Amino acid sequence: MSRTFKLTIAYDGSEFIGWQRQASGVSIQGLLEDALSELDGRAVTVIGAGRTDAGVHARGQVAAAALERDIDAAAVVRAVNIRLPASVRILDATPAGKDFHARFDARLKSYRYRIWNAGVLSPFERSYAWHVPMALDVPAMADAAAALCGTHDFAAFQGTGSDTQTTVRTVTRSSVERDAGSPLIVYDAAGAGFLRHMVRNIVGTLVEIGRGRRPVASMGDVLASRDRAAAGPTAPAQGLFLMAVAYDEQKL
Amino acid sequence: MSRTFKLTIAYDGSEFIGWQRQASGVSIQGLLEDALSELDGRAVTVIGAGRTDAGVHARGQVAAAALERDIDAAAVVRAVNIRLPASVRILDATPAGKDFHARFDARLKSYRYRIWNAGVLSPFERSYAWHVPMALDVPAMADAAAALCGTHDFAAFQGTGSDTQTTVRTVTRSSVERDAGSPLIVYDAAGAGFLRHMVRNIVGTLVEIGRGRRPVASMGDVLASRDRAAAGPTAPAQGLFLMAVAYDEQKL
Repeated sequence: MSRTFKLTIAYDGSEFIGWQRQASGVSIQGLLEDALSELDGRAVTVIGAGRTDAGVHARGQVAAAALERDIDAAAVVRAVNIRLPASVRILDATPAGKDFHARFDARLKSYRYRIWNAGVLSPFERSYAWHVPMALDVPAMADAAAALCGTHDFAAFQGTGSDTQTTVRTVTRSSVERDAGSPLIVYDAAGAGFLRHMVRNIVGTLVEIGRGRRPVASMGDVLASRDRAAAGPTAPAQGLFLMAVAYDEQKL
Repeated sequence: MSRTFKLTIAYDGSEFIGWQRQASGVSIQGLLEDALSELDGRAVTVIGAGRTDAGVHARGQVAAAALERDIDAAAVVRAVNIRLPASVRILDATPAGKDFHARFDARLKSYRYRIWNAGVLSPFERSYAWHVPMALDVPAMADAAAALCGTHDFAAFQGTGSDTQTTVRTVTRSSVERDAGSPLIVYDAAGAGFLRHMVRNIVGTLVEIGRGRRPVASMGDVLASRDRAAAGPTAPAQGLFLMAVAYDEQKL
């Protein structure tokens, strides 16, 4: 009888084609499936909560995998990590119910987008932030970000190539803050689900507002337009982190 | 007439052979000299405050360089940075006196050593910390570190291959702290000068104390022994950061 594990995973997305296994290139899903298949002696499928794009990082991605082998959770962490590159780590494994589904059962996903707002980009941020050297009006960005909280049709912020049935999403957190005494500005977003490129398209629009190219109130107009062309550009992948995925206790 | 600039430099040391130019391999000094020579149209020498080893990082290395070309400080920053890889950045350039010497005039150097004390190493720390998964007694490490403050003969902590005339140094800060709510433990050291591998050899000894392999009081015995064999192993390079170098105002 197989046992299902809930895996919490961190990865530096810099060198990967993204979460999802594809015909060519190295994906995080592919690395995990290969490591778990070797451990279990048969093909293991890994389902992740969110399919992060190439270059996007995770501090708390969650995935589910069922193993036939009789192995405890701590041993899963050790055995899988020794089969992974140092850029991908299983932080935790917990036994979960047979029907646990990392994607469908997710109740809340939290993302963070990091902007390095100084003339010179720190060498330590070159793979982990978007370098915006121009002056940014952070209170204006914070006001515009707050306007996105709630249940809205986010079609204006959806990237092309999506096949979602509805573009209505509920965002419970959308905030911008400057890190005290540092050039770092962070955008935090949380919600049950996000559209493709949604966080990065919101950040691209927020930076245009921060630069004074759009008024704060324009965020409401962009949202109402449901038109991708009305929003700003897609912020680069390397600033984005999937921070955490939360589940209802009874789903685990 | 040439003009001397004080340059503040940050670098990710992961991919370099260290600060100092050598017969083969890529050094930070070599990259800066090449970039400045191209800018000035003649061979430019760059003298750094501290010769960091291979894999050691800097957030505030200081170097001096004299340029013949009539160029202001802000233009030096821009022109050199476009000639450097993203892993090395000039953060600031300031005009300095003709006789300014980045190494001999340095009054205080600050180093930080980062230890990741958790079972699993974060992918984001793999090049920026020493992974110590075993339990560490941080108060014991802090007590032992404090015993090093003051003027002492640090011969026991000097790496081989040094040609210093005296091994007496004055340490004004030597402290260990756990970062609240994270697996990060940092060792901070400051002083007018340090011996080769001194910070890393101190950290190697502190970790043995933290693991309970040596008593706290042994730090004084190691210091008194003046014997490298009495101290702990050399902590790995990737956890060490040269944080800042301070100068007397009249030297600038």
